[in-house]
Amino acid sequence: MCQLLGMNANTPTDVMFSFTGLACRAEEHKDGFGIAFFEDKGLRHFIDNHGARHSPVADLVKRYPIKSDNVIAHIRKATQGHVALENTHPFVRELWGRYWVFAHNGNLEGFAPRLHGAFRPVGDTDSERAFCWLMQELAKSHAGVPTVAELSRTLAELLPVLAGYGTFNLLLSNGQALWAFATTKLWSLQRQHPFGAATLADEDLSVDFAALTSADDRVSIVATEPLTTGEPWVPFACKELRVFVQGAAQHNP
Amino acid sequence: MCQLLGMNANTPTDVMFSFTGLACRAEEHKDGFGIAFFEDKGLRHFIDNHGARHSPVADLVKRYPIKSDNVIAHIRKATQGHVALENTHPFVRELWGRYWVFAHNGNLEGFAPRLHGAFRPVGDTDSERAFCWLMQELAKSHAGVPTVAELSRTLAELLPVLAGYGTFNLLLSNGQALWAFATTKLWSLQRQHPFGAATLADEDLSVDFAALTSADDRVSIVATEPLTTGEPWVPFACKELRVFVQGAAQHNP
Repeated sequence: MCQLLGMNANTPTDVMFSFTGLACRAEEHKDGFGIAFFEDKGLRHFIDNHGARHSPVADLVKRYPIKSDNVIAHIRKATQGHVALENTHPFVRELWGRYWVFAHNGNLEGFAPRLHGAFRPVGDTDSERAFCWLMQELAKSHAGVPTVAELSRTLAELLPVLAGYGTFNLLLSNGQALWAFATTKLWSLQRQHPFGAATLADEDLSVDFAALTSADDRVSIVATEPLTTGEPWVPFACKELRVFVQGAAQHNP
Repeated sequence: MCQLLGMNANTPTDVMFSFTGLACRAEEHKDGFGIAFFEDKGLRHFIDNHGARHSPVADLVKRYPIKSDNVIAHIRKATQGHVALENTHPFVRELWGRYWVFAHNGNLEGFAPRLHGAFRPVGDTDSERAFCWLMQELAKSHAGVPTVAELSRTLAELLPVLAGYGTFNLLLSNGQALWAFATTKLWSLQRQHPFGAATLADEDLSVDFAALTSADDRVSIVATEPLTTGEPWVPFACKELRVFVQGAAQHNP
């Protein structure tokens, strides 16, 4: 299945991704991968429709110490849409002068919304269709530029609609917050200073935090499966939405 | 000044970019660079707000033989907008289910259009503002999805409006065509098979074409300055628009 990984931190955090395990199991995840890093409002977006084993992009991401406060990564196992660059998550659109990044794990059956707004899919996945619909409905729901709290309330109404079409585990960010929603499989973990020796290790995808300096540093991680043992990973309930701002889960989003 | 480089080919062409010269003159172009590669409708977008000398992204692009039919590259010397990732060209938006890529060389004074459409700048450059206005006006001008010829006619009306605000040398592509427009400095060259030994060499930015196989292979290059001597580079007239499709300049765009 596809794998999701999200990070939200209260300070630009030096994240290193490792595709070591992934490279060994390339057959299982040969349909591409992608990572988007926010640097304030700016965005770096690396995608590849080849497996990480042969990808110079994966190689770059491995060696590149990117300081980011919001990250969304996705490893693709195609369910709908052929294997092509335009079908590779995460997807990006602009709304209200911010980039929005979307990655989805699951499969939406028969989801064919009327897209009458300014957002159209470029590829042919159910995921990008869902993203365009979500952007369209967000845009319609707010006259001005909404706050994170207002966005969270709107998303709490919209996301269950998509979940009605099938498995829908989602990561979404506009650089201000990380929204995570699950129907079947998502876990989150909040970690605080000191991160020093901490390494999150997974066969497929791991993330290391370089030494952080301040006692106030805080980061939240969301992933398809817990990436470590012995840490308090919290599973999502079905159709649960969590919102992370400044490295911490918000209450009553 | 900023440098532009565009490529349009009739077959996905193996392009290698070199930043050799650039790395030596990093001080002059320390404000970032970016390259966007179309692969059919899909897009790879590499940007960096650091000079190419220290950029692992430049390093990747150098070593990565990307097969693309439309490429837009930009090396930035900041005029408006601070040096930040969100101010780094080329910019990307989606319209009519295609990605649009925009890079600009020049400076628009006092250009503050009313942006009432679906496109808002993320950063604070005159260039991204011009791009958003262009996308808004294109969207308004066509009820359905326009052809390249229809788009060219609309652009021929819109681009001189932007040129009224200052220096405006532009590269624009949606993956179907490459539009190039100049007020001061742009040259283009059409090359045909065989490309074998051909190397375009420039101090800052060069592009090599790997051996192409078919006698029908054709590619057009657009650049701020001719990249070779002894080849028939054609300068743009002031406010001239050229449209390249399948590697060839179109007549009467």
